[in-house]
Amino acid sequence: MAKNKLLNLDFLKLPITTELFGIKAKAVGLPPGTLVHVGKQKIEKPVISLVDYFQDHFDTRTDITIEDATAVKETETVSWINLSGIHDISLIELFGQRFGIHNLALEDILNTQHRPKVEEMEGYNLIILKMLFFDDTTQSIDVEQISLILGPHYVLTFQEKEGDVFNGVRERLQRSNGRIRQRDSDYLAYALIDSIVDSYFHILEKVGDNLAQLEEDLLSNPEQSTLGRIHHYKRQLMILRKSVWPLREVISELYKEESPLIREDTQVFLRDLYDHTIQVLDTVEIFRDTVSGLQDLYMSAVSNRMNEIMKVLTIMASIFIPLTFIAGIYGMNFEYIPELKWRWGYFAIWGVMISCIMGMLIYFKRKKWL
Amino acid sequence: MAKNKLLNLDFLKLPITTELFGIKAKAVGLPPGTLVHVGKQKIEKPVISLVDYFQDHFDTRTDITIEDATAVKETETVSWINLSGIHDISLIELFGQRFGIHNLALEDILNTQHRPKVEEMEGYNLIILKMLFFDDTTQSIDVEQISLILGPHYVLTFQEKEGDVFNGVRERLQRSNGRIRQRDSDYLAYALIDSIVDSYFHILEKVGDNLAQLEEDLLSNPEQSTLGRIHHYKRQLMILRKSVWPLREVISELYKEESPLIREDTQVFLRDLYDHTIQVLDTVEIFRDTVSGLQDLYMSAVSNRMNEIMKVLTIMASIFIPLTFIAGIYGMNFEYIPELKWRWGYFAIWGVMISCIMGMLIYFKRKKWL
Amino acid sequence: MAKNKLLNLDFLKLPITTELFGIKAKAVGLPPGTLVHVGKQKIEKPVISLVDYFQDHFDTRTDITIEDATAVKETETVSWINLSGIHDISLIELFGQRFGIHNLALEDILNTQHRPKVEEMEGYNLIILKMLFFDDTTQSIDVEQISLILGPHYVLTFQEKEGDVFNGVRERLQRSNGRIRQRDSDYLAYALIDSIVDSYFHILEKVGDNLAQLEEDLLSNPEQSTLGRIHHYKRQLMILRKSVWPLREVISELYKEESPLIREDTQVFLRDLYDHTIQVLDTVEIFRDTVSGLQDLYMSAVSNRMNEIMKVLTIMASIFIPLTFIAGIYGMNFEYIPELKWRWGYFAIWGVMISCIMGMLIYFKRKKWL
Amino acid sequence: MAKNKLLNLDFLKLPITTELFGIKAKAVGLPPGTLVHVGKQKIEKPVISLVDYFQDHFDTRTDITIEDATAVKETETVSWINLSGIHDISLIELFGQRFGIHNLALEDILNTQHRPKVEEMEGYNLIILKMLFFDDTTQSIDVEQISLILGPHYVLTFQEKEGDVFNGVRERLQRSNGRIRQRDSDYLAYALIDSIVDSYFHILEKVGDNLAQLEEDLLSNPEQSTLGRIHHYKRQLMILRKSVWPLREVISELYKEESPLIREDTQVFLRDLYDHTIQVLDTVEIFRDTVSGLQDLYMSAVSNRMNEIMKVLTIMASIFIPLTFIAGIYGMNFEYIPELKWRWGYFAIWGVMISCIMGMLIYFKRKKWL
Amino acid sequence: MAKNKLLNLDFLKLPITTELFGIKAKAVGLPPGTLVHVGKQKIEKPVISLVDYFQDHFDTRTDITIEDATAVKETETVSWINLSGIHDISLIELFGQRFGIHNLALEDILNTQHRPKVEEMEGYNLIILKMLFFDDTTQSIDVEQISLILGPHYVLTFQEKEGDVFNGVRERLQRSNGRIRQRDSDYLAYALIDSIVDSYFHILEKVGDNLAQLEEDLLSNPEQSTLGRIHHYKRQLMILRKSVWPLREVISELYKEESPLIREDTQVFLRDLYDHTIQVLDTVEIFRDTVSGLQDLYMSAVSNRMNEIMKVLTIMASIFIPLTFIAGIYGMNFEYIPELKWRWGYFAIWGVMISCIMGMLIYFKRKKWL
Repeated sequence: MAKNKLLNLDFLKLPITTELFGIKAKAVGLPPGTLVHVGKQKIEKPVISLVDYFQDHFDTRTDITIEDATAVKETETVSWINLSGIHDISLIELFGQRFGIHNLALEDILNTQHRPKVEEMEGYNLIILKMLFFDDTTQSIDVEQISLILGPHYVLTFQEKEGDVFNGVRERLQRSNGRIRQRDSDYLAYALIDSIVDSYFHILEKVGDNLAQLEEDLLSNPEQSTLGRIHHYKRQLMILRKSVWPLREVISELYKEESPLIREDTQVFLRDLYDHTIQVLDTVEIFRDTVSGLQDLYMSAVSNRMNEIMKVLTIMASIFIPLTFIAGIYGMNFEYIPELKWRWGYFAIWGVMISCIMGMLIYFKRKKWL
Repeated sequence: MAKNKLLNLDFLKLPITTELFGIKAKAVGLPPGTLVHVGKQKIEKPVISLVDYFQDHFDTRTDITIEDATAVKETETVSWINLSGIHDISLIELFGQRFGIHNLALEDILNTQHRPKVEEMEGYNLIILKMLFFDDTTQSIDVEQISLILGPHYVLTFQEKEGDVFNGVRERLQRSNGRIRQRDSDYLAYALIDSIVDSYFHILEKVGDNLAQLEEDLLSNPEQSTLGRIHHYKRQLMILRKSVWPLREVISELYKEESPLIREDTQVFLRDLYDHTIQVLDTVEIFRDTVSGLQDLYMSAVSNRMNEIMKVLTIMASIFIPLTFIAGIYGMNFEYIPELKWRWGYFAIWGVMISCIMGMLIYFKRKKWL
Repeated sequence: MAKNKLLNLDFLKLPITTELFGIKAKAVGLPPGTLVHVGKQKIEKPVISLVDYFQDHFDTRTDITIEDATAVKETETVSWINLSGIHDISLIELFGQRFGIHNLALEDILNTQHRPKVEEMEGYNLIILKMLFFDDTTQSIDVEQISLILGPHYVLTFQEKEGDVFNGVRERLQRSNGRIRQRDSDYLAYALIDSIVDSYFHILEKVGDNLAQLEEDLLSNPEQSTLGRIHHYKRQLMILRKSVWPLREVISELYKEESPLIREDTQVFLRDLYDHTIQVLDTVEIFRDTVSGLQDLYMSAVSNRMNEIMKVLTIMASIFIPLTFIAGIYGMNFEYIPELKWRWGYFAIWGVMISCIMGMLIYFKRKKWL
Repeated sequence: MAKNKLLNLDFLKLPITTELFGIKAKAVGLPPGTLVHVGKQKIEKPVISLVDYFQDHFDTRTDITIEDATAVKETETVSWINLSGIHDISLIELFGQRFGIHNLALEDILNTQHRPKVEEMEGYNLIILKMLFFDDTTQSIDVEQISLILGPHYVLTFQEKEGDVFNGVRERLQRSNGRIRQRDSDYLAYALIDSIVDSYFHILEKVGDNLAQLEEDLLSNPEQSTLGRIHHYKRQLMILRKSVWPLREVISELYKEESPLIREDTQVFLRDLYDHTIQVLDTVEIFRDTVSGLQDLYMSAVSNRMNEIMKVLTIMASIFIPLTFIAGIYGMNFEYIPELKWRWGYFAIWGVMISCIMGMLIYFKRKKWL
Repeated sequence: MAKNKLLNLDFLKLPITTELFGIKAKAVGLPPGTLVHVGKQKIEKPVISLVDYFQDHFDTRTDITIEDATAVKETETVSWINLSGIHDISLIELFGQRFGIHNLALEDILNTQHRPKVEEMEGYNLIILKMLFFDDTTQSIDVEQISLILGPHYVLTFQEKEGDVFNGVRERLQRSNGRIRQRDSDYLAYALIDSIVDSYFHILEKVGDNLAQLEEDLLSNPEQSTLGRIHHYKRQLMILRKSVWPLREVISELYKEESPLIREDTQVFLRDLYDHTIQVLDTVEIFRDTVSGLQDLYMSAVSNRMNEIMKVLTIMASIFIPLTFIAGIYGMNFEYIPELKWRWGYFAIWGVMISCIMGMLIYFKRKKWL
């Protein structure tokens, strides 16, 4: 339809509410700590996997039962138990019972719209973060919530679906010589968070490339769809910002916290992580500035184009309207119009007209309209 | 009328003063603590209701007298006394006397335009909050003030009219096995505030849905009434913000306050509530950004449409004005115009004209105006 | 004149410098503490009035001498001495000597452009505030400075002219049973400040009504003078803000100050007053948002109107220019134009023209321009 | 030239770099504390003048040598030594040696682009401020740096050229009865700074008058040069702000500093000065708001004018293009056009045309375009 | 191409991602402290150079080996070891081992996109800064990262390529009488940082000159490419700001830090440096304001130009369209048009037409359109 083409933003029809704003749809009046899964079910069946290691010991298992997972809790080795798929509330409840997690914490884990935060609780720390993935097809950012429970000698991670940014960590765990095998669960938690923050750089890189492309397109051919894309990236940056902004606070709290679970020699790594987080934030802010600069450019391009259009109209009208008038004069049927009888009248009038055209052209040239 | 259609905002004619800005109309010079009801009377007759419970004990009564209400104050059981309808000043005064509430606190309760706040007073805490309801017909937010007096073993609530967001709490009270029955009045107050904050998520969800709809309409058919709707939601968000922004402070004060009335094991719930409040605030801010983004989009659409209109005009004028001139030339009545005598002059001139049209079309095509 | 009508802001010709910006015109190099009256003389002759009371004692006198005023200073009763008209420097100096007020304080009292502030000095507190009056004729806010000296058992007030917002306080003082008669000068000062803040609500109410009217006018008939009114209210809000913003600080300082002059049981009233001040500030900010929202609306209305105008032009030109061309074609004087000889040529051409009109109308209809 | 007239800002051609931005052009790599004069030489020969006083003693000398200046340093009387012209580096170095001033302080004194600041050093305080002068011819603000060294019983001032705002202070010093003669160098320094801040009020008054004039012109005749003036004042306010903003910090530091050089009885004056500084800042901010409000008004005036222009065009075109078409119809040369034969055809067509005009006029009247 | 000319920003085609946003491209999952060079290799072979000095001792060598560099570490003389070219990871690792630098610090040094920062570590301080160079050809700012390791009696500097802003420091080191030869490594580090900050003034000066030029061009001939240049400088200022903003924090941390490596007599120099940094920041902010002011001016110029264009069109159309209509009237072929028979009809009609023209001209004159 003609109307649609005005902005051409068809591909933007995202459901704002659920994807962007993340509104918790918990029924009013449910007692706090009631376990309700907020969000979509993204995996068919929850899968528990385990990595158990310490120094020379290394063991990895997938699709284990909750009992297996609980068994390793008490051992002296470091255990990383990951649950992919959090829609099964009874399973989450079981985790809560076995690992002694407060119901309010479980509620936060289940609410996939939760703001990133860290909370020190009795015997463990709860850390809620967002993993971001850039979907090249829709050029938009997918958000997946990940919750970490950092306990003594174990880390629990809760993901919405399979597939994460932790493959690097898994490889390092497998290698027997890495520093990570020498250290405790706090370092493992750090390594996981570090992977998440690192993955933000990839998102930023992709968004940056897209913005560069957008700018190039804007400069070479400012179409109307460009505005749609600007609007699109503005929103992507909003999502990004919403996920990244609280991160600063999270890392800084972790870093300053006097938790017995976090050793001193991990602090220096957290401080380094904090630096990275600041860099991510800086870049997001610069991207936002850039996008709004592009929007200004676009609006200027529209104004310039309007000027262009009006110039064409004005030039055409200014040249031909007077000429038409002159022609009209000698199209009149007065009985006595002396010029009409002149032998060279017709050619003389052509001369006049051409002079008019010349005059106008010189005028427009001077005004730099041509 | 034609004028009106320019913006088409008829449905917006809200009385700004009373609904949005909530200006206290207390007469100048009244002594402070003078009880004046500020706001509209929203219920015919005030109704007092009571829920009295503790562990196995549970009792609920509606439409009781003030004496009944006072009677339960001294008991060891937890009492929730609710008054719907606060226009009856003498009744409020009675409450003040029976429960030992300072006149300034009563004045605040009666002033339905008061800013959300918490104030620790001798023997009780005063908490003023706003309940929000989304009216689907007018697509606007209704605000109702609710004041809580949190005393030892009792909670008083003052509402402007019947109908609230506490049904969930009432149900949980009725069930004998809930945690709420084990705890004191501070937990009850928390549960009530939690219900209010939870209800904000519903408002946000509805506003979000409406914004999504608005965006879709804007993209598919940017009418002039769209601007009216943008303006409307901007104002709704202003109302929302005004109610929600002070909430952060309120909850944080409650959370940090060293009040003897608030036990330590309720603190963890308040902290959780604080997290929710922050999420509400975040979402309101994102909605505001979204609305102003939509306004930008609308203005761009208007500019683009202007370009569109001008293009049509320019194309039509640029093609036909020169042609009219050519026709005018050969409409002149000079005695000697050689071309007029030519056998195929008329067709030749058609040729010239069609070439002109073609030339212009190619020119416009190149400029991508077609 | 035609030009003037473009914006039609004639009624706005305020002298910016003196009324809005309040620039102190003290001669450079005068020693600090030199008494100079900055501002206009607003009353012919200064008038001193006195209210002297305590518990059962009550006495009120107008147009007394400075000696009478000094006499009551030493008594145990509470005295409120008011001076209307501060242009008589020698009188102010006398006050300074009799009541032991520092010259710098007197200088501030005389400078009617001073910023609201509170300052604790030896033996007394200086409080400078602004009384605001809304002038319905010019729809603008008049500012009058009022200075309070709060001493032990007495309050001095300095006003620029007669007429204030304290009639309520006077009535309460007259009644023998009020709380105010039981209390000391600190409560009197509080009551006076409270009256001033209360009067701001009246200003806000009037400004709110005017904004509502402005919005309604803007929606029903966006004239060019509307912009003038928007600009006008913007400036009124600037004045309001300038007066109200420092108030927050003033009240909060009074409230937190450990001054021996302010008793503990007055603190709770000051805290209440602080709440009111915050509400005033909130409302001013919301008004500012509203005004800038109205300005956006106005600009959109102008853009829409431009679109409207251009549409009319484009439709008229697009329909008639091609038709004129067609008529021009058959107005040519070529000897051989076959169509001219056809019997129904004239009617055929009418058919063609009507088809053209129809085509254009359908085209515009589709584009929703009609 | 035609182009230039578009904005007509010729008088604005200030050298941005040197006047506005004050970039220090010190050669890279010079050791810190190297004395380089940054700025223009504004006086031919440096002039040292001296005012030496205490209680009954008073002595003033101009054009003295550095030795004379050093001589009074040790005396118990208060000495104010002023140097006008700071381009002579060796002289400044001598001052440094004689008065024991650190090279870094001298470097700051010589750098006329330095930010206003106060720095407590061993035995003296360095205060750097800006004197502002309003040049009525160019309507712009001239900035001159002034540095104060406050030592025990002496004050050194370094000015770029002769002519300052201290004449009032000099007169007060001369009078034997003033407070200033009773006090020490800290009060002198205060008096000098007070004179500078007072002179800002004069600048503000002039800028305010100019803004009022600008507004009046904008309302009565919004020419294109108006925008140039708006831009001009925007920049003047930038200069003003840059000079005044750090002042707040300077005065507040002086006021709070526990320097042995500043006596307690001077503190109350500094506090008063602080109030004045805040007022200057407030006014500058209000001026900035005002200027940007004027810019909005101007842009609206431009939009309105465009509407005006388009209306004229649309009205003219809408009335005459259809008429021309009608005339064109009957200018066609078809053999059979029945109307042409009618006796009153010509007058009938006039009737039709006049009806058209009337119709259009009524239509435009209804749209309020006329 | 025609389209391109609309904005004419060809020279702006910078790769946004790498140059502006500096996104770290470290592979996800690499263990922290893994040494990866992030950035381009800017030099073929790393070059180590050494300056070794103390009081009378001075020695300078270029292109030495890592062993030579390590040798001087233990001596009591101050050693400045500079490495140009950081792409050789094994070399960096060697440095780490020999000088006991933590792997995380090495990682930061290798990441040329790191944010400026200072970090106190065991036995040394890591300082990361940016050197800026202004490339006159592209009128853009090149950023080079420089990292300093400040240890006891030695300073290591890591540069991306040869060529820096330290020649002044080198010269001062060579001279035997300078203060720098008397002091320890902390002063050397200060001198290096001071050189970097000084060089920012040069950049600012060049940007300022370019902005002045841009303004002049904008005023004399606002072409479309002007907008491109505005956009370009906006981005340059973004780069500048990103490099300079964290500097404030860095210097302030150095200044306040209680590091044993920084002596008290160096503190005063750091405080001076801090002042310079603030001045750089102020200037960058003013430049940003200036650029956005220029953008406003440009947009106004575009609007004014549009008005200009529309005026020409309106004047031409308003004058000639009615005339053409009049001519059209008498071009009609009605059998009975009395005027056509009049002897002087033709001349009379010329009179009418000239009156029309005059009327319109007077009308436009009055409207000040001419």
